[in-house]
Amino acid sequence: MSDEELRNMISMTLTCRIDQRENCSDKMEQFLQRCFYQSGHYNSEEGFSELDRKLTEKEAGKLPNRLFYLSIPPNIFVDVVRSASRTASSPSGWTRFIVEKPFGRDYESSGELTRSLKMYLAEEQIFRIDHYLGKELVENLSVLRFSNLVFQPLWSRDYIRNVQLIFSEDFGTEGRGGYFDNYGIIRDIMQNHLLQILALFAMETPVSLAAEDIRNEKVKVLRSMRRLKLEDVVVGQYKGHTRGGKSFPAYVDDPTVPSGSVTPTFAAAALFIDNARWDGVPFLMKAGKALHTRRAEIRVQFRRVPGNLYRGNVGTDLDMATNELVLRVQPDEAIYLKINNKVPGLGMRLDSSNLNLFYSERYQREIPDAYERLLLDAIEGERRLFIRSDELDAAWAIFTPVLKELEDKRVAPELYPYGSRGPVGAHYLAANYNVRWGDISSDGSF
Amino acid sequence: MSDEELRNMISMTLTCRIDQRENCSDKMEQFLQRCFYQSGHYNSEEGFSELDRKLTEKEAGKLPNRLFYLSIPPNIFVDVVRSASRTASSPSGWTRFIVEKPFGRDYESSGELTRSLKMYLAEEQIFRIDHYLGKELVENLSVLRFSNLVFQPLWSRDYIRNVQLIFSEDFGTEGRGGYFDNYGIIRDIMQNHLLQILALFAMETPVSLAAEDIRNEKVKVLRSMRRLKLEDVVVGQYKGHTRGGKSFPAYVDDPTVPSGSVTPTFAAAALFIDNARWDGVPFLMKAGKALHTRRAEIRVQFRRVPGNLYRGNVGTDLDMATNELVLRVQPDEAIYLKINNKVPGLGMRLDSSNLNLFYSERYQREIPDAYERLLLDAIEGERRLFIRSDELDAAWAIFTPVLKELEDKRVAPELYPYGSRGPVGAHYLAANYNVRWGDISSDGSF
Repeated sequence: MSDEELRNMISMTLTCRIDQRENCSDKMEQFLQRCFYQSGHYNSEEGFSELDRKLTEKEAGKLPNRLFYLSIPPNIFVDVVRSASRTASSPSGWTRFIVEKPFGRDYESSGELTRSLKMYLAEEQIFRIDHYLGKELVENLSVLRFSNLVFQPLWSRDYIRNVQLIFSEDFGTEGRGGYFDNYGIIRDIMQNHLLQILALFAMETPVSLAAEDIRNEKVKVLRSMRRLKLEDVVVGQYKGHTRGGKSFPAYVDDPTVPSGSVTPTFAAAALFIDNARWDGVPFLMKAGKALHTRRAEIRVQFRRVPGNLYRGNVGTDLDMATNELVLRVQPDEAIYLKINNKVPGLGMRLDSSNLNLFYSERYQREIPDAYERLLLDAIEGERRLFIRSDELDAAWAIFTPVLKELEDKRVAPELYPYGSRGPVGAHYLAANYNVRWGDISSDGSF
Repeated sequence: MSDEELRNMISMTLTCRIDQRENCSDKMEQFLQRCFYQSGHYNSEEGFSELDRKLTEKEAGKLPNRLFYLSIPPNIFVDVVRSASRTASSPSGWTRFIVEKPFGRDYESSGELTRSLKMYLAEEQIFRIDHYLGKELVENLSVLRFSNLVFQPLWSRDYIRNVQLIFSEDFGTEGRGGYFDNYGIIRDIMQNHLLQILALFAMETPVSLAAEDIRNEKVKVLRSMRRLKLEDVVVGQYKGHTRGGKSFPAYVDDPTVPSGSVTPTFAAAALFIDNARWDGVPFLMKAGKALHTRRAEIRVQFRRVPGNLYRGNVGTDLDMATNELVLRVQPDEAIYLKINNKVPGLGMRLDSSNLNLFYSERYQREIPDAYERLLLDAIEGERRLFIRSDELDAAWAIFTPVLKELEDKRVAPELYPYGSRGPVGAHYLAANYNVRWGDISSDGSF
């Protein structure tokens, strides 16, 4: 590709922010003029020397910091890092590498990858990206917790009955199942995105907002967690489904998926943090593809009101009448708190209403893409939203035993129709811990 | 007036509820046929005997319960009750009397009134109406507190910094100042409406929702309150003001107001409950006529977050960044909780946003008038929202000393322009207790 071809390609995706329309095309042009294309083999030091020469030429006198974003298959991470760090590191500024998941397949391979990267890089040069940490509502989680007195007494086993971390996509692998099949939904979503949110949610107050302080607290949460057991996991895989004359394929119909695959496209899990704050509180995760909706949210269900004076007025189902705090990460960012309220009118009838904060109503501004925030953070050396090696180790330690067991036993996933609410097993898993999924309609239908 | 004339008068004010349009005119007609007019002297037993005869005739065989609503000047309460109870009480059903404020002018005269009424009536026959207790949001106050776990740990001096009870009208006495001048705003609004809301807000959890259990708790709060002192009160009176070519009269311009009157049309007060839950928490009241807005609300300001991690991100004014729960009683019923939230976008900037519940959005139904609810309660013998004698005594005990002192000293009210935010003294009073009124704009302007 020539520089010009690259620039054309980029220019097609450039847009102006609503609030920055002035001189927009000039700014775009300036940006494009700073984009260059350099090809080379991933494991060739000559190729990276060539890149280094070109960079040195362009840098001419400016502080030569270099940020490498490795958008490449995991099996060539180490080769690229070796070559790039040896021959294309910044001579006097910093050199950083952003790497994307997967960070290994389990505790051992992740540790191996970390050790290999550390042969060439210091920990502070490695930026392990988890784009969920760049989502607006996830960033806001700590703000909500730590800058609002009203939430402070509530944030523990004394008031919280369970926490639900829910991720669903309304599409399947759609011909791109080759990579996915090697990992499955637990590695793809739970062990990273949902577990990271859980750690941010559950951590103790950090000493400060500095990256190491926050990451220290996250590691403590992860290290306090029980290893996940097989009986606390439900796995599912979507099957073909015809609806309204349209037919949706099964996961195994994807030509890039090996036939007979038992890779889960859905999983639900019950996790526990054995520390003073969270002892006994189930943290339920649910993640799946080809479900009825696209959604990512954190739901906090509070305990029942002890000695509730209004027992008779809230119907017979006290479970449904407990408070719930929902942080909707996507789509349509929102925060809402489900409270019991008197239905206006004569008589005393209670219903569940929401105290709402809809971002689209409150904030007339574009919410930046998660990657935008994270790339900027990496440039600025802000490590708060990136994952440290010991965090990664602790995260794998929780999931690795059950992943091995699932794979050794070739546990058959429960099949669920494309576009449905997922396997009914997730319902039973939750019921084991007296939990009802907050995203399921109140009649419990799937 | 003939029955027909009365019915014509009533029919002009009858409307159909949105949700009950069917056969509406039939229902109206049925209702009107049950309305009769009977004139007589308030202190004439013959007149009430005549009424009794007429009632007996109309009741013919049905359970003859009788409810008297005394919409009369206070100086003839006792005469009417004497005559009515002696000669027009129900022979076999119940007989109840609804009385409206003023219930005396002070502790002594109120006690005297109660003793006089009790010569003819038992306590359970007396329904002292305070129409503020019939307001939807006031009714909802206990529901919010006692059926939502999330509010339970917050409801005390540990988390609440101050509570504000605000009532404002955007009009003056407008030629009807004769009655008002004899009472003033403290008796007209504070000692009853605002104090009743305060008691409901601050009471301990009652044994049950039964009337006596709730009233027992309210009395306990009132009896735990300090007598209000002169230095904790600011009084004001509106003066004439010309704005946009239109001129608004002073209170003393009202022809029904005695010239040179020092009756307050505005008052602010700082009250304290000396019990374990509320020790040291200022309860600030503010009530006034001819202000810039019409509003009644309860504002709960929470304490600062101790060791706030986001200290630098919320501006220099930590006071403004504390949580606040607002119950807007009128107009436009709403509940909202002010929380600190991350402003979406790159970087970390916090703002204050609201979790909102707007009744007009949530509930597509008419909110019944406060009197509608209270009349129905009186018919049903539900005393929860009516004021018991001992409550009334306790309420007067708080305000009587300061009322006497204001009147004995003829304390001159601070004049404020018609349509303004009231006297600046209210601001200083609040500042004495490190409080900022929540309804004043953040720049503190009046």
